Amino acid sequence: MSQIWLYAGIIAGLLSLGVAVLLNFWVHRQNAGSERAQEVARWIREGASSYLRKLYSALTVVSVILGFIIAIVFSFDLSQLGTGDVSIETMNGIRMAIAFVAGGVCSAIAGYMGMNVAVEANVRSAAAASKGLNPAFRVAFYAGSVMGLAMVGLAMIGMSVIYLITGNPEVILGFSFGASTLALLAKAGGGIYTKTADIAADLVGKIEVGIPEDDPRNPAVVADNVGDNVGDVAGMGADVFDSYVASTVATMLLGGAFSDKFGDKYVIFPLILCALGILASLIGIQFVRVGKKGKPGAALNRGTVITTVVFAAMVVALVLLGGYDLAVLWPTLTGLITGVIIGFTSDYFTSEGHKPVLETARVSNSGAAINIITGFSYGLMSIVPSLVGIVIATLLSYHLAEVSGEISGIYGISISAVGMLAISGMIVSSDAYGPIVDNARGIAEMSGMPHEVIERADVLDSAGNTAKAITKGFAISAAALTVLALFAAYAEVIEARGITLEISLRNPVVIAGVFLGAMTPPLFSALTMLSVTRNAFDMIEEIRRQFRERPGILAGKEVPDYNTCVTLAAQGALTSLILPAFLGVGFPVLVGFLLGPDALGGFLGGSILTGVVFALLMANAGGLWDNAKKYIESGKYGGPGSEAHKASVVGDTVGDPFKDTAGPSLNTLITVMSLVASLFAPIIAAFHLF
Amino acid sequence: MSQIWLYAGIIAGLLSLGVAVLLNFWVHRQNAGSERAQEVARWIREGASSYLRKLYSALTVVSVILGFIIAIVFSFDLSQLGTGDVSIETMNGIRMAIAFVAGGVCSAIAGYMGMNVAVEANVRSAAAASKGLNPAFRVAFYAGSVMGLAMVGLAMIGMSVIYLITGNPEVILGFSFGASTLALLAKAGGGIYTKTADIAADLVGKIEVGIPEDDPRNPAVVADNVGDNVGDVAGMGADVFDSYVASTVATMLLGGAFSDKFGDKYVIFPLILCALGILASLIGIQFVRVGKKGKPGAALNRGTVITTVVFAAMVVALVLLGGYDLAVLWPTLTGLITGVIIGFTSDYFTSEGHKPVLETARVSNSGAAINIITGFSYGLMSIVPSLVGIVIATLLSYHLAEVSGEISGIYGISISAVGMLAISGMIVSSDAYGPIVDNARGIAEMSGMPHEVIERADVLDSAGNTAKAITKGFAISAAALTVLALFAAYAEVIEARGITLEISLRNPVVIAGVFLGAMTPPLFSALTMLSVTRNAFDMIEEIRRQFRERPGILAGKEVPDYNTCVTLAAQGALTSLILPAFLGVGFPVLVGFLLGPDALGGFLGGSILTGVVFALLMANAGGLWDNAKKYIESGKYGGPGSEAHKASVVGDTVGDPFKDTAGPSLNTLITVMSLVASLFAPIIAAFHLF
Repeated sequence: MSQIWLYAGIIAGLLSLGVAVLLNFWVHRQNAGSERAQEVARWIREGASSYLRKLYSALTVVSVILGFIIAIVFSFDLSQLGTGDVSIETMNGIRMAIAFVAGGVCSAIAGYMGMNVAVEANVRSAAAASKGLNPAFRVAFYAGSVMGLAMVGLAMIGMSVIYLITGNPEVILGFSFGASTLALLAKAGGGIYTKTADIAADLVGKIEVGIPEDDPRNPAVVADNVGDNVGDVAGMGADVFDSYVASTVATMLLGGAFSDKFGDKYVIFPLILCALGILASLIGIQFVRVGKKGKPGAALNRGTVITTVVFAAMVVALVLLGGYDLAVLWPTLTGLITGVIIGFTSDYFTSEGHKPVLETARVSNSGAAINIITGFSYGLMSIVPSLVGIVIATLLSYHLAEVSGEISGIYGISISAVGMLAISGMIVSSDAYGPIVDNARGIAEMSGMPHEVIERADVLDSAGNTAKAITKGFAISAAALTVLALFAAYAEVIEARGITLEISLRNPVVIAGVFLGAMTPPLFSALTMLSVTRNAFDMIEEIRRQFRERPGILAGKEVPDYNTCVTLAAQGALTSLILPAFLGVGFPVLVGFLLGPDALGGFLGGSILTGVVFALLMANAGGLWDNAKKYIESGKYGGPGSEAHKASVVGDTVGDPFKDTAGPSLNTLITVMSLVASLFAPIIAAFHLF
Repeated sequence: MSQIWLYAGIIAGLLSLGVAVLLNFWVHRQNAGSERAQEVARWIREGASSYLRKLYSALTVVSVILGFIIAIVFSFDLSQLGTGDVSIETMNGIRMAIAFVAGGVCSAIAGYMGMNVAVEANVRSAAAASKGLNPAFRVAFYAGSVMGLAMVGLAMIGMSVIYLITGNPEVILGFSFGASTLALLAKAGGGIYTKTADIAADLVGKIEVGIPEDDPRNPAVVADNVGDNVGDVAGMGADVFDSYVASTVATMLLGGAFSDKFGDKYVIFPLILCALGILASLIGIQFVRVGKKGKPGAALNRGTVITTVVFAAMVVALVLLGGYDLAVLWPTLTGLITGVIIGFTSDYFTSEGHKPVLETARVSNSGAAINIITGFSYGLMSIVPSLVGIVIATLLSYHLAEVSGEISGIYGISISAVGMLAISGMIVSSDAYGPIVDNARGIAEMSGMPHEVIERADVLDSAGNTAKAITKGFAISAAALTVLALFAAYAEVIEARGITLEISLRNPVVIAGVFLGAMTPPLFSALTMLSVTRNAFDMIEEIRRQFRERPGILAGKEVPDYNTCVTLAAQGALTSLILPAFLGVGFPVLVGFLLGPDALGGFLGGSILTGVVFALLMANAGGLWDNAKKYIESGKYGGPGSEAHKASVVGDTVGDPFKDTAGPSLNTLITVMSLVASLFAPIIAAFHLF
């Protein structure tokens, strides 16, 4: 029976991947517009590919090293430790290393496909915008769907195949760790890249020489647009891929606890949920259309709501017809609903129609400082509804699962994370739409398209920003539940080795772990944000040099050297990753070996807590400042050029690395840390200093 | 034997209080300077008293209500619950209520004395500055000592007397809770007051009409100077008073665990440490003198170092001669040394000579946003050394105490907090010096004293800022260790009722508590900071109104109406306290009754974690921005008026509510929450929903 489900999962994955490939071709067949627009698009495309090549080369090195370590470590049969009779099973090590590499490769392929189509779709969406809102929207959204569908398809195929071959969810942990390592580097690297270019372009372009956004005379303008792709498309894709796989594998591991009674019925249950989520997303995507007078934002939301409803119906059918206990239904639905609600409440704190943005805009005429204090304070407040949502989801799914008597409460929490993430195909599709229309707007501006086209691109862009805010709230909450599940899986793996894990807050070693874990997300944020300002400084120098040495650029008679800025941003981002990457992958292992499994449990707890808190704060405060600025730019409080506008620009710039560099990397960071802890748990259980 | 120690403690307390009273008279006898200066000082004095009167009236209402609740609740003998035979012991309730009120009153008296002398000393220090640096320094420091010594003296007397009468440390919990409730309101209220006035005075005065700092034409200038006193003198005093008492009572409670074996030897040990700390502080204060060419900063540091060394020597003698196990010596010294080290490392992140401030100043010529991102990032980094210090202190004191076999590891952690706080007399004296010289500078400016006097006041002021930064680091770390001790005491109180407390991170109810606790400090920060901007807006309107309706003010021909601004600030601060106060006192009790003692344990853990993290971030980032601005004002990167300076002013203004409103209230918040939890633990253990 379970084999059939696995084959069905693989077929769902292939279907998703197939649709992604077809949409990809469809996008490529669209009209690519004028020669000038195509040239601009080519610069962006080349910049993006050159960055991805560098990133993937660096990743290959990291993967080979980590893969090698994993192969060696997992070749020892640790269950025999202490018996004096340690056997070596090379196959185990090789299997785990292959799974690790496969996870990285699958995530990389999805990211590559997503970015590849994004950099073709931007110019085509701009070209289509000259015909109307709907054609432009369709190109951008379908291109976004390529990423969303490729991602869930590849994840599904990878997990199902590994389980089909090995029958051991712990091997999928290796796959998940591979995907997460890539995600951490892609997300943090992309975040540093995009904001380095954005800030440098703005500071010299807008403020020093007074040319508008996306002006082709700005040497950093291509790097800025490349940044949108590498940061927002490839980065966010890798990020959700990683939560998606991690929550599934954690649930599979926890489902193993009931295998005596139910076989692997509950081990494969999360895989089935993912397969249903794929089908629901494929259906939901059909409904994302903008009519003659339709609004792009409403169209995206309609897709999400329909996907949610269809998925919920499918899960009900599965549970009723598939012989599952009702106990798994409630947590799934709880997670699903919580995810959608948290996504929409994060919209309250960041979108134009509500008090936080309006108030922040209103106080801006008293200067930048008041704008920042107000925005930061609302950012702090925005933590509350999401955490309350997570608390309710946790308690509810635990309780509903526990009372059933069939499955454990912890399994319920884990299932709620899967329920939330199962519809990732749809969520990522709306999210990846954002940077594509952002780019389309840039290309329209740079290639001198008519004013009405740029206006349409603006409408598309603003819907993209809201979708982005919702996805961020969704991604952070999903990551929070995922790491709670991983946390439980970590305990499961440790206790499976016969060691009692006591992560009691009354144990000083656990307290030490908690404090060390708590300081990691802030330190990670500091490192990545300081990289942005440092790299931006180098790029500012380069832009000034070009303007100084070649006065023809500003006069519009000479084409600037876009490439040096693109290279600067890429190299800066990659070299800045070394310390943050160590923090994510190495530090938890170090804490584990030094202070033992209990402390490592505390470490994970502490890092989850401050990770989620800072992720929410930074994502929401950043989004809020951005939209307060846009609100003023729409003519309120004096409009563009007023004192209020200047103040709001400062707030927006502060928010840039908050919302696009540090904030969104934090959920990846805590996932990676939880995964590396679970993966190395058997070894840490065997060897540790205290 | 223990009675002798208690009497000795009371004598040390009386000695301390006596010296405080003498110094108070000495300060009053100093020359109060010119008529004009005295007039300015009188405005400040009257503003400060009027605020304190309002604050203490509000507190009286709060105390009566809470005291009444406490009296009723503790009149039930909860140990008999479930036996169907509940007896009522009214004396218990009344005793606890009296202790609660006494705690508030002692803290209020110390705060009142400190502020009373501060508002007399400011003008006298300014007058003495015309004679030289040393006389001015002496007046300010001795006035600061009044607060430091009165505080530790009253705390000592209060705790010793209660223990002498009741022999029950749980009653001292009531005393501690009274002190902390006052501290929370004094600190948060003072913080809102001071920054409301500061920001409003700066925004209209410096930016809109272009008059200098402390200009007497500014209607908010008196409120601004009053703010320094109510925020920094009375607030900080109440804050340290609260940690001082709380760490002592937590240790006394934990020491009760060995009473079978040792009687109350380890119950009174923390009281003896406090008594020795008082003597050491009295000695250390003698060495704080500035020679002809001496530096005020070095003089303050010398006092701290000497107090530390003397105290360490006394503890060694006590342990060797007093028959205590060596196991208590190491934790005491660990805490003491850690406190001093953390204080000085927080100096690294906030003072002029080091990379964080220099780098933040350097990037300021790229605008306010980069200044803020950089300062904020270093603020995030500054969390690391303090947390590592706390982790090492925790592990070390636990381990050193545990291996002894005589006392418990948890008692060791608790003792390290007392070791850190025992020298509070000296620490608070240096800290209270800061706002006095700040005020002296203001009076010198407002009353038109010669340039060289203002310059001397500047030198004194800058030493005050460094002392303030060190004290903040010290206060936060001490609070962290204190709440760890309270956390253990909470567990002790619960388990004394025969309930097993399992604060395991694997229990979903605990996880729910942790998340709810984690969101409280950010929410508290948001509420207090938004109060500052909201109240500052009202005051800005008032200042503008005065300038508009009475043009003679700006021409220097009319005296502005200082009083309306003073009243606005006071009323605004007090009404803004309602929600934050509920969060501190009511929310933990609510969580306890709803989710039970395990969840409340998790709640405390979560709140400690984010409380400490945000307290460090905000205190250090704020101090850093302040000093980066001062560095630029000293002529670097274009000096005053340059673009870099404007950017650094924005950073400084953002930092104002960070470092003086939200940040320093957070340690009080977590102490209050831990205390209220411990106090209500017996009732929560008996009644809770889940």
